[in-house]
Amino acid sequence: MLIVGTTVIGARDVGRATGFWTAALGLTALPPVGANDFTNLTRPDGRLLLAIQQSEHDAEPEPRLHLDLYARDGDDQAAEVERLIGLGAQRVPWDRYPENADFVVLADTEGNRFCVIDNARAPDQCRLEMP
Amino acid sequence: MLIVGTTVIGARDVGRATGFWTAALGLTALPPVGANDFTNLTRPDGRLLLAIQQSEHDAEPEPRLHLDLYARDGDDQAAEVERLIGLGAQRVPWDRYPENADFVVLADTEGNRFCVIDNARAPDQCRLEMP
Repeated sequence: MLIVGTTVIGARDVGRATGFWTAALGLTALPPVGANDFTNLTRPDGRLLLAIQQSEHDAEPEPRLHLDLYARDGDDQAAEVERLIGLGAQRVPWDRYPENADFVVLADTEGNRFCVIDNARAPDQCRLEMP
Repeated sequence: MLIVGTTVIGARDVGRATGFWTAALGLTALPPVGANDFTNLTRPDGRLLLAIQQSEHDAEPEPRLHLDLYARDGDDQAAEVERLIGLGAQRVPWDRYPENADFVVLADTEGNRFCVIDNARAPDQCRLEMP
C-alpha cells in the first residue's frame, strides 16, 4: 500500500509560503510539526495535498519537480495569474515558451517555479475534468 | 478556479521514469505529448496525478520539491521500500535522519529524491486516512 500523500515545497520562510499556498489554492494549514519547520496543507475535504518545509537551499531555476496548476480557460488563466501575483508570486522571464503556449511560468514567494495551465487549450492527455 | 493538476517529475529517460512511477503507485501512463517528452500518469479513477517530463538537468541532492509517499505502518514501509528498490529506486545515504525517523529517503530511477513515510508513526498533522 503506497500512496502519494503530499508534494513538499521548500521555503526560506515557512509562514510566508504557507500564506501564499493556502490563499492560492483555498487550502487549510494544519498546526506546524516541530519548530514551525513543517506545515501540512489540506484540501477542503480534509485530505493532505501539500506540505511546506523549511529549506536553506536556493530554489532551482529549472527544478526537477514542479507543480502544474490548472485554470479553466484562457480568461481564467489570465485572472488567476494576476491573482497569484497579487498574493506574492512573480512572473518568470521564461525564454522557452513555445508558440501559443498553454502555460505561464510563475515563482512562488520562495522562488519555487510552477506553471498555470489553460485547461481548455491543453492537449487531450493533459486536460483535467474541472469541477 | 485553480487546482493542482500534477506534480511534474523531470527525467533523463522519460520511458524509464514512467515505468518506475506507474509500477510504484499503480498509475496508468497516457500517450505522450509531443516527441515523447511529456507523459501524464493517472490514478485508477482516471484523475491526473503525476507527469514525467524530459530534463537535461541533474537531480538536486536537496531539492526544493519532493514527494512524500505514505505506507500503512512500519512493516508496510519496509516492504514498500524493498519493492521500490526492486523497481529501480536507490536508498539515499541520508545523513540527517532524526532518532526514530518515520521516513526513509529514496531516489527514483532518475535520481529524484522522495520519502516513504510510516503513516502509523507520523505526527497527527501528517497522518493520512489510508483506504
